[in-house]
Amino acid sequence: MTEPWSPGTGSLDFITLHRAYASGGLTPSRVVDAVYDRIAARGDDPAWISLVPRTEAVAAARSLESHADRDRLPLFGLPLSVKDSFDIAGMMTTEGCRAFAHRADSTDPTVTKLLDAGAIVIGKTNMDQFGVGINGTRTDYGIPRCVFDHDYISGGSTSGGGVTVAAGLVSLALGGDAAGSGRVPAALNNIVGLKPTPGLVSLGGRSRAGMSASHTVLTLTVADAIAATRILIGYDPEDPQSRPEADAFALEAEPLPRAFRFAVPSTATRMFFGDIEAERLFDAAIPQLEAMGGAAVPLDYSPFHAVAKMLYEDAFIARRYANLQSFYDEHEAALHPATRTIVGWGRGYSGADVFAAQHRLARYRRMIFGMLADVDVLVTPTTPTTFTVAAMNDDNIARNAELGTYTNFVNLLDLCAIAVPNGMRPDGKPQGISFVGLPMQDARITSFAAAWERQRGLTLGATGQPLPP
Amino acid sequence: MTEPWSPGTGSLDFITLHRAYASGGLTPSRVVDAVYDRIAARGDDPAWISLVPRTEAVAAARSLESHADRDRLPLFGLPLSVKDSFDIAGMMTTEGCRAFAHRADSTDPTVTKLLDAGAIVIGKTNMDQFGVGINGTRTDYGIPRCVFDHDYISGGSTSGGGVTVAAGLVSLALGGDAAGSGRVPAALNNIVGLKPTPGLVSLGGRSRAGMSASHTVLTLTVADAIAATRILIGYDPEDPQSRPEADAFALEAEPLPRAFRFAVPSTATRMFFGDIEAERLFDAAIPQLEAMGGAAVPLDYSPFHAVAKMLYEDAFIARRYANLQSFYDEHEAALHPATRTIVGWGRGYSGADVFAAQHRLARYRRMIFGMLADVDVLVTPTTPTTFTVAAMNDDNIARNAELGTYTNFVNLLDLCAIAVPNGMRPDGKPQGISFVGLPMQDARITSFAAAWERQRGLTLGATGQPLPP
Repeated sequence: MTEPWSPGTGSLDFITLHRAYASGGLTPSRVVDAVYDRIAARGDDPAWISLVPRTEAVAAARSLESHADRDRLPLFGLPLSVKDSFDIAGMMTTEGCRAFAHRADSTDPTVTKLLDAGAIVIGKTNMDQFGVGINGTRTDYGIPRCVFDHDYISGGSTSGGGVTVAAGLVSLALGGDAAGSGRVPAALNNIVGLKPTPGLVSLGGRSRAGMSASHTVLTLTVADAIAATRILIGYDPEDPQSRPEADAFALEAEPLPRAFRFAVPSTATRMFFGDIEAERLFDAAIPQLEAMGGAAVPLDYSPFHAVAKMLYEDAFIARRYANLQSFYDEHEAALHPATRTIVGWGRGYSGADVFAAQHRLARYRRMIFGMLADVDVLVTPTTPTTFTVAAMNDDNIARNAELGTYTNFVNLLDLCAIAVPNGMRPDGKPQGISFVGLPMQDARITSFAAAWERQRGLTLGATGQPLPP
Repeated sequence: MTEPWSPGTGSLDFITLHRAYASGGLTPSRVVDAVYDRIAARGDDPAWISLVPRTEAVAAARSLESHADRDRLPLFGLPLSVKDSFDIAGMMTTEGCRAFAHRADSTDPTVTKLLDAGAIVIGKTNMDQFGVGINGTRTDYGIPRCVFDHDYISGGSTSGGGVTVAAGLVSLALGGDAAGSGRVPAALNNIVGLKPTPGLVSLGGRSRAGMSASHTVLTLTVADAIAATRILIGYDPEDPQSRPEADAFALEAEPLPRAFRFAVPSTATRMFFGDIEAERLFDAAIPQLEAMGGAAVPLDYSPFHAVAKMLYEDAFIARRYANLQSFYDEHEAALHPATRTIVGWGRGYSGADVFAAQHRLARYRRMIFGMLADVDVLVTPTTPTTFTVAAMNDDNIARNAELGTYTNFVNLLDLCAIAVPNGMRPDGKPQGISFVGLPMQDARITSFAAAWERQRGLTLGATGQPLPP
């Protein structure tokens, strides 16, 4: 017999909730009630920018309970947080910027997909303004903190999303990921962030000039990330970056090869910025991957690093300006200083610079695809280190660039990646590890991540709860 | 019995020459001798910028005659002209611009491929400066003229190449094609221009920032264009725009379907700029295509036209500036006025403009690919009309834009196209017709073009010679 689900500490992972719902011992409305109690218990929490009124969320849960097809809803009764870049009709959308705040009159189709699948939205979460940044401090709505240490950053840009999942407030968080906005807060809060191959999940009305990015989900387990991402994958003729093959794409577990080759950044070219604990913890992952049948293939990380730097330190930053141009030109002073500076760089690049940068990128892509074709998967730390909020703010832009060492290259190359926990450093901060694959290798990387998660057997987020059997 | 090959009028098409070589009645050195006599007979001809000395070319032909593998050389003994954008060691490269002229110290790998296949280079041909333009007037080396009317443009940018093939001076011309630089001079001189899917033919060291383009061949017949293009197709890891699947790509004739659907620009959306003769001649093609088993599908040409205009009238022009930047900034005054103006536009676009334009293009691509997926091939005029050199120079930039109505969209969308003759207007000027296909449909479009060429049974270029049986 399993213990009854506890309103105070019961896990919100999909499997635990669905088992409890199926047994008849638990209802979505009771879970939503518990969620609001947990939120209240945390007090003021900058993870949230706005909450759905409790009565509304409970009513939504009740209505689901009598849904005719409830057994066929893949996300039935799962509490959801939504990054405040997605519109929900009647709620404010802020993008982390007060000057941008406005009430939305429609709901983003991505959110609708999750709601139609049975999820219950609890609120909108904090974020680095306009998704520019992966640290979580660039916001007008207070700085969400790492669930393990209040002095530390939560990572971003889906900063609040990472906290809401790791703190056991929701089952899943909807976020984005261009530089690492889903993977980094997952890593820094000991949860899972899956960033599919760009084009598998439609960006819909949010498809933006030149942005290679993906909507992303943050969850407590790999299985949950797969289940939620499956809902989102699909071709959208309205999004020019959507892949026609998305409709036929099955994100199904692949059996792991008995023997496989995994690339890791070579000792000479990897970077931890002096964080010896992070380095040791990543090194400890290698024999565990070998125990799973893997052979480590050290690889020159320099081209990956060069591409990672291109995201902010080359003409690609003009995409950010392209997409914010009218707001930026009118409200420049209202932006967070780091956001303002970085987006402002985008104004300094000419059209010729962009074509030259794209040409350089194409050469790196050729080189890197060749390197990755030779292995089954690339394994990296998700971040090289982490920072206190204070250290972050000493030089927000430089620290953010360091933080993106192992994430910033991924979308520029149309790769897929999943960030999963790699355990705790001696100082009690979690480390993430990323499985990175060539375009459309999403099934493969999630299969590796699931095997890894079983192998490690860590507790979920900051909940103290184990992986459900 | 066929007549012996005549040095004055014998056709230089591949089949005629190879049959005559095989019969033992003709040698490459005799053909090269005849070629130089024909060139001399034309007097000063701005089609050429430089010629290989006759003795050298004859010596090259002699050396081929004793080549151990001569029977296995697909281009054995075929005279070749090379657009003056390709380097040939020891010869000048001008790109049609005196200020750029310099002696090359190596030979472009594309030229080497043709020479290794048995072709004999006769000279370097005139071109619109730096390949900017499709009319043939933008050059410092005199204006090549249409082989049918000295008052008329030859088309460009491979202007000299078109003339050298149509006038019976070479078997094939090597050119380029970004806006229509191979197809337009083919159309205006009654020959064939095949522009493969970008990435099938490596641009090698000439791969340039953001340029979707292809090397191209101009020939007297479709079969010749296929044979020459086969030599050029192949993957090149050094060219980031090269397609890995190029190595496995077979440009083989496909049997035409007994019934097929061909798209044509709808009457309401097509454009001939008042050229009624061109309109009538294109209209006459439709029943002939129907006689071949085709069903015409009129299609809204507006999105194609919008994309065609983007090539020069949107941020994509910044690619031209990106690739000429250092030369342009130093030698601006030395450029042809039209080239200077157009490339100069490229300086005016910001990085944000480029990303926005690429996003717009992606939307059009989605729409147009959907339209083309519904038919077997798109058939258009190659040009809507033609111009006298005088009319061209009244407003060189505006006339050039008109000329590109049916060619400029092709490379921006990564399509393939082949221009073939559609007979003569009553005023004695030729019209081209283009078969356009989705990426990698090169075999299909060339099969349609070959069937069309048989159906029409026109004489080749300005040679008066028939299609070889």
